Amino acid sequence: MLPGMEKRADALQRLRRTHEEVVLATLRAEGPMSRARLTKATGLSRTTLFAIISELMERGVVIESGVADDRPRQRGRPPTRVSLNPDAGLLIGVDLGRRRIRVAIANVARQIVATAADDAAADADESEQADLAIALVRKVCEDEGIGLGALEAIGVGLVGVMDAPDRRWRAVERLEAAFGARVEADNNARLAALAERTWGAAQAAEDIVYVRWSVGVGGGLISGGRLLRGAHGASGELGHVSVDPAGPPCHCGGRGCLEGRIGMPALLDALAAKGVRLTGTDDLLEAAQARTPAVTSVVVDAARTLGTVLAGTVAQLDPERVVMGGDLATLGGLVLDPIRSAIGELALPGTRRTLDIVPADLGPAASAMGAIALVLTGQDPSPPHPGPELL
Amino acid sequence: MLPGMEKRADALQRLRRTHEEVVLATLRAEGPMSRARLTKATGLSRTTLFAIISELMERGVVIESGVADDRPRQRGRPPTRVSLNPDAGLLIGVDLGRRRIRVAIANVARQIVATAADDAAADADESEQADLAIALVRKVCEDEGIGLGALEAIGVGLVGVMDAPDRRWRAVERLEAAFGARVEADNNARLAALAERTWGAAQAAEDIVYVRWSVGVGGGLISGGRLLRGAHGASGELGHVSVDPAGPPCHCGGRGCLEGRIGMPALLDALAAKGVRLTGTDDLLEAAQARTPAVTSVVVDAARTLGTVLAGTVAQLDPERVVMGGDLATLGGLVLDPIRSAIGELALPGTRRTLDIVPADLGPAASAMGAIALVLTGQDPSPPHPGPELL
Repeated sequence: MLPGMEKRADALQRLRRTHEEVVLATLRAEGPMSRARLTKATGLSRTTLFAIISELMERGVVIESGVADDRPRQRGRPPTRVSLNPDAGLLIGVDLGRRRIRVAIANVARQIVATAADDAAADADESEQADLAIALVRKVCEDEGIGLGALEAIGVGLVGVMDAPDRRWRAVERLEAAFGARVEADNNARLAALAERTWGAAQAAEDIVYVRWSVGVGGGLISGGRLLRGAHGASGELGHVSVDPAGPPCHCGGRGCLEGRIGMPALLDALAAKGVRLTGTDDLLEAAQARTPAVTSVVVDAARTLGTVLAGTVAQLDPERVVMGGDLATLGGLVLDPIRSAIGELALPGTRRTLDIVPADLGPAASAMGAIALVLTGQDPSPPHPGPELL
Repeated sequence: MLPGMEKRADALQRLRRTHEEVVLATLRAEGPMSRARLTKATGLSRTTLFAIISELMERGVVIESGVADDRPRQRGRPPTRVSLNPDAGLLIGVDLGRRRIRVAIANVARQIVATAADDAAADADESEQADLAIALVRKVCEDEGIGLGALEAIGVGLVGVMDAPDRRWRAVERLEAAFGARVEADNNARLAALAERTWGAAQAAEDIVYVRWSVGVGGGLISGGRLLRGAHGASGELGHVSVDPAGPPCHCGGRGCLEGRIGMPALLDALAAKGVRLTGTDDLLEAAQARTPAVTSVVVDAARTLGTVLAGTVAQLDPERVVMGGDLATLGGLVLDPIRSAIGELALPGTRRTLDIVPADLGPAASAMGAIALVLTGQDPSPPHPGPELL
């Protein structure tokens, strides 16, 4: 294929998807209507529109209803109307976390109708995690009376960089085989960013830095309304920015990575070195909430380090909102204030920019919800997904 | 307007632009053809296609030629063919640099047909710079016999963050008034990134970090084929990542910024402190090319510092190519090798990623060329602009 031809094929594929989006957006905004009215409303040719409607009907996304338009009845077959199928378009989001499997289920109106979670063994591989998720989905659907016949697509969130196809496809294949639906996967911190933009703290923002600070440090970058993926699916790896090029080696192969300095194990180690022994995340959060001085000082130092790295991110990406998610962000001002102050001191204060640094809204189901956002319009999160309140 | 309606209006506007792109891409790839064949080739309705062609003809982008299609001649008026107008679609790119004004001129086939440069006084404001550019454009067109009647649009590159509308619009208004054409502006380092993607060292890459290292340190980020602009037009400001939060204050309001550490004045200062007095950029480049030990050691240290910052950029954005532009990048391996080594040590070496670190291709006219790339498809650099060799 000639390069020029390839460009044209790309353009045509994009055009088809845009056509489909316009048809669905019109039905969502204006309700059921006849093909004739849809043709006018969208500017598409009759042939193109009919082909799109046929494909959407085949996929069960839209249905035909016998009700005529509200214009004078004419001879012959009354025109039928096309509408979104309320019993279809079931979307499932699955988050295969380090030790915790979560699922979320959304209806065709993009509303979350159920969420659930289950523990996974620390040494479970992706296949075992996927099996747990499959069982969990089946249980939730049974409990809630949700019919899986209406399943449209499944999104999956995975830990880590998306450049290892074996790992990735093991889980994807398992879910495809179990449910016979389209399955798409992405990094679960990036998916949480997408969820916050769709339903949470980053709605209506176009340029967002999302950070998840828990056991590890991850993130998701949205610029101009688009989730950035990077050339190898590794965009957003804030935890592997080096804060000390001569520092200790990191599991990523680098040195002095932010995650090794401020991830939960590093905080627990720093406290142990001060003689404060805590057994895990909940323990540390509780002690910080109780304002135990040794604990707050370690957390505040870590937040300041994170803020310094984020100041560099802000200088380079110029977001309008930084959304702080993950366990540590639940500590509110204790972590947000040092981050705000580090960014405020370093990130181009001389310009007229505004920047909000806000806590995430969606809690631990964010990645499972983001997996739903992922499959809403395929790999490409732009145009923005309207949240439930826009419907 | 209801939010849902706005989304639909956005979608329709995007659709119109996509339609136009498909029509132009088809004409570019397959040459002149009748409206009937264009309708089939693009899948658009007759009405939509005719409207797009009318608008493109009004703007002089396409013309009608009397030659019939190569099918059997039939009765009645022979079908006319539509083609790109070779005498129209003149695009001008203007780069209002610190002390140097550059212009580039491209024809409808996106080929650069002329470039020129002139000095500006160090204290010239945007209006004075714009006046110099206007005179320069007129002179080049006269010298080269280029008719300005075919002018389609002007792109302008400016120094600094794009969040000061007064500054920005002073130059834009001046150029609009002088030439009566659409004028768009963006930061000139970002435009150089766009030029390298369109014609230079970043062609065919989708995820690019472009760095310009000269008097200042600037950059442009392209992710998924799109130039990132940021919420306030400040994306890509690599020079204002802090390398020392406790360091000296920077004109941006931050502290210890990269630009203050490795920009040309800082390098000259560092050399002066060692007793090596050089008068400016050319002097320093010459001494470095002659491998004067004191000079190479300062340059290599600075390159290593830049590499460390870039390692963080790579960790966060996951590019496939880092393109090094600006005066210092002309030193080749002397600066590229320390940068490669710093990125290699720190940026997720454990993954299967590939990353090329390459010198820029386009030289000092890059920003003026990028200003042309900017107006080629309006503010949005995606879909990728095919370079001349794709036509």
